[in-house]
Amino acid sequence: MKRSSVKELLHSDKFLQEVHVKGWVRTFRSNRFIALNDGSTINNIQCVVDFENTEEELLKRITTSAAVSITGTLTESQGKGQSVEITVTKLEILGDSNPDEYPIQPKKHSLEFLRENAHLRIRTNTFSAVMRVRSALSFGVHKYFQENGFNYVNTPIITGSDAEGAGEMFHVSNFDTNKAPLNEAGEIDYTQDFFGKETNLTVSGQLEAETYAMALGKVYTFGPTFRAENSNTTRHLAEFWMIEPEVAFNDLDANMDLSEDFIKSVLGYVLENCKDDLAFLDNRLTQEEKTKPQAQRSEMGLLEKLNFVANNNFKRVSYTEAFDILRNSKPNKKKKFQFPITEWGVDLQSEHERYLVEKHFKCPVILFDYPAKIKAFYMRLNDDGKTVRAMDVLFPGIGEMVGGSQREERLDVLKAKMADLNIDEEELWWYLDTRKFGTAVHSGFGLGFERLVLFTTGMSNIRDVIPFPRTPQNAEF
Amino acid sequence: MKRSSVKELLHSDKFLQEVHVKGWVRTFRSNRFIALNDGSTINNIQCVVDFENTEEELLKRITTSAAVSITGTLTESQGKGQSVEITVTKLEILGDSNPDEYPIQPKKHSLEFLRENAHLRIRTNTFSAVMRVRSALSFGVHKYFQENGFNYVNTPIITGSDAEGAGEMFHVSNFDTNKAPLNEAGEIDYTQDFFGKETNLTVSGQLEAETYAMALGKVYTFGPTFRAENSNTTRHLAEFWMIEPEVAFNDLDANMDLSEDFIKSVLGYVLENCKDDLAFLDNRLTQEEKTKPQAQRSEMGLLEKLNFVANNNFKRVSYTEAFDILRNSKPNKKKKFQFPITEWGVDLQSEHERYLVEKHFKCPVILFDYPAKIKAFYMRLNDDGKTVRAMDVLFPGIGEMVGGSQREERLDVLKAKMADLNIDEEELWWYLDTRKFGTAVHSGFGLGFERLVLFTTGMSNIRDVIPFPRTPQNAEF
Repeated sequence: MKRSSVKELLHSDKFLQEVHVKGWVRTFRSNRFIALNDGSTINNIQCVVDFENTEEELLKRITTSAAVSITGTLTESQGKGQSVEITVTKLEILGDSNPDEYPIQPKKHSLEFLRENAHLRIRTNTFSAVMRVRSALSFGVHKYFQENGFNYVNTPIITGSDAEGAGEMFHVSNFDTNKAPLNEAGEIDYTQDFFGKETNLTVSGQLEAETYAMALGKVYTFGPTFRAENSNTTRHLAEFWMIEPEVAFNDLDANMDLSEDFIKSVLGYVLENCKDDLAFLDNRLTQEEKTKPQAQRSEMGLLEKLNFVANNNFKRVSYTEAFDILRNSKPNKKKKFQFPITEWGVDLQSEHERYLVEKHFKCPVILFDYPAKIKAFYMRLNDDGKTVRAMDVLFPGIGEMVGGSQREERLDVLKAKMADLNIDEEELWWYLDTRKFGTAVHSGFGLGFERLVLFTTGMSNIRDVIPFPRTPQNAEF
Repeated sequence: MKRSSVKELLHSDKFLQEVHVKGWVRTFRSNRFIALNDGSTINNIQCVVDFENTEEELLKRITTSAAVSITGTLTESQGKGQSVEITVTKLEILGDSNPDEYPIQPKKHSLEFLRENAHLRIRTNTFSAVMRVRSALSFGVHKYFQENGFNYVNTPIITGSDAEGAGEMFHVSNFDTNKAPLNEAGEIDYTQDFFGKETNLTVSGQLEAETYAMALGKVYTFGPTFRAENSNTTRHLAEFWMIEPEVAFNDLDANMDLSEDFIKSVLGYVLENCKDDLAFLDNRLTQEEKTKPQAQRSEMGLLEKLNFVANNNFKRVSYTEAFDILRNSKPNKKKKFQFPITEWGVDLQSEHERYLVEKHFKCPVILFDYPAKIKAFYMRLNDDGKTVRAMDVLFPGIGEMVGGSQREERLDVLKAKMADLNIDEEELWWYLDTRKFGTAVHSGFGLGFERLVLFTTGMSNIRDVIPFPRTPQNAEF
């Protein structure tokens, strides 16, 4: 007979009908009650075994993570906390799980232990909820852009260009290690490598996306990007997924509008579509917070925070205003910042961003018009000659969620900037072409997807929101 | 005033109202008629310039690919082939495009020339249509899976595992080329590399996806994959996007059902949502076909072919049946096959697949139950001991669109197979865990996304359906 999912059955009212389900045992108690899960929902369905008429040998094999096939009658549940259960008429063990060997016991494991078992941690409530929410967020991203006339562009992962300067890059090669051939000048002969040139893993698809925006109007990327930086923090991954919209004719104001509307829409999508998972994660975070000293606890619960962000305006503040706020702030005056705020033009550190977002404004903040010196070459210079039309969206507990800018559309200004920074025009001939042929104002931003998942799920380490994290000294699985 | 997209205006009936639009000039004829495009649709809107009251200097700057801002009155068109046009009241050149320098002239360029200008080819009708269809196909993929209870899983791109054996891999490293440190034994000391081990670019996310399917039930990947193979063909890329669903409790029949339902649904989505682009590509292909000798022309037009596939059942044939058909076929008897079909067990070549699909069945074909010897280690062995539950979906003009299988869920059989092939158990400890703890029947497949785009758009070279193709000796842009 047709198999139903646990999710379908939990929402069914076809009582007294025969049903069929397959899944994994989460717990088995009193030799009678199986909590069965098949991944379709965070909730388990209770399957009641007629233990008096079931062989001892079979009962012993009903262990945590065993795969089972169950046929039975859908019944209104007598127990509290659930509305339906299955009265089991037929039980088959599909795959055993020896409780003496299975690493994930029905107890609380450390997240670090679970990271070492990233192939099994997905069988826990926490990780299944996180990864279902991650999946829904992804779809929310695509849905938002597709419904708003954007075209998805797959920019290249392997790139011959290293001019963007967003960070250290990984080399990609087909040479045997330490056996790359040399040319007559004694240099490494990359013409003999697979692509005929030196290649790296992309740090951003922005420059390529810009060429597409200048023809399709509105585009976005959503793909993996890489940083070969030795950052062992709870906020950095060597391999992460990035979303980069780029829109022709958008100035910085329109870019800020887009980033805000986009984030709110995506959060709205998961609030609507991941109720059970978010309720679980909300409760999880509440328990987690209770273990912290009072002063460090978050003022809002997870759902409250998500609803707050989805329904309130982000605060927009220029770098110069933010600089003044920070310079006059209590922690700055009391020399509590590790990096004191003294001179206009300094880059803001995490401690400053957190002060602005968490203490001063208490909401997401968009900082804009940064000093040109601390930002990338392609950002549009303001008429003051010293600031650029850059923007960062800062989130409580996360820091930078989005970095973006209006792009420098003037060929002469762009070339001068590249010359200043010793960026080879030959390298970026194709990028300069967009300014040579039908240039126009345009803007875009990058959003690190895992930071959005982190914020949405209330997890605290970025390694826990991607299935198999890549970090320094770690590429297991 | 608010800017409208060309697409909105072409569907508008707000005649005599003032409208504002920005885009790029496709053509400018009779010093009067601008065909304006902004990427929102393949169709241009005609903007009629009052040339008698416009300065000569300005008129000269209205050249192909110049970016312009236009304000005017929406008018019912007098010309044929369009229903609305804009009577221009204000015209501003945002970005010039010098016609002596702009490489894409309003004439037919070779696809090879356009490949060398991949940053500009998106400004042509053909490539903008292809890339909009590609974007819609992507969304159709996500939509299908999300609406059917699948979770999107981002499997790792950088992998420490090289056991899957799907093809040659690219090395990823942070070492300076030819300067990797050695350990005491004189071997390369990968513990000093970024990830502390030898790493490569993934050839498939299947094995990792399986671990997720065994907890979430239904999952899919959709991300870039890599092959370092020196294949200079119209069907291969070194970097391409792959879709890999994996479903717990699905046997091979359910897997075939899924692949067929999935492809039909995605084609249905673009047939519904890309009417204008597909009509253009249909016409393009018809013109293209006319340049071929009669015998080589396709029997169906593009739209006809897409509708045929979306609405007809795929033919399911076992390898053994297909082998018999091929052995008794005219080309085999007349020794027209480059690889004659003689002995059961041989791998089928492209010429054989094409014969089955294009000459014999004349529809997509799913071949299943292949000889174990020519298929991967993880495929489930049939009771006959010599075939495995593998399947390939073959498409006319494309060949293999999908490759999949029911996976070997029995730990002992899987281990024996790995031992046979000298695959290290230590390497895949985590994969074997899925068979150790709650194993169950499960199946999945991989679909090369660019082949689907190729089929859907009627293009003939895979380099023309991905923005910036990566192939041997080519990683430009």
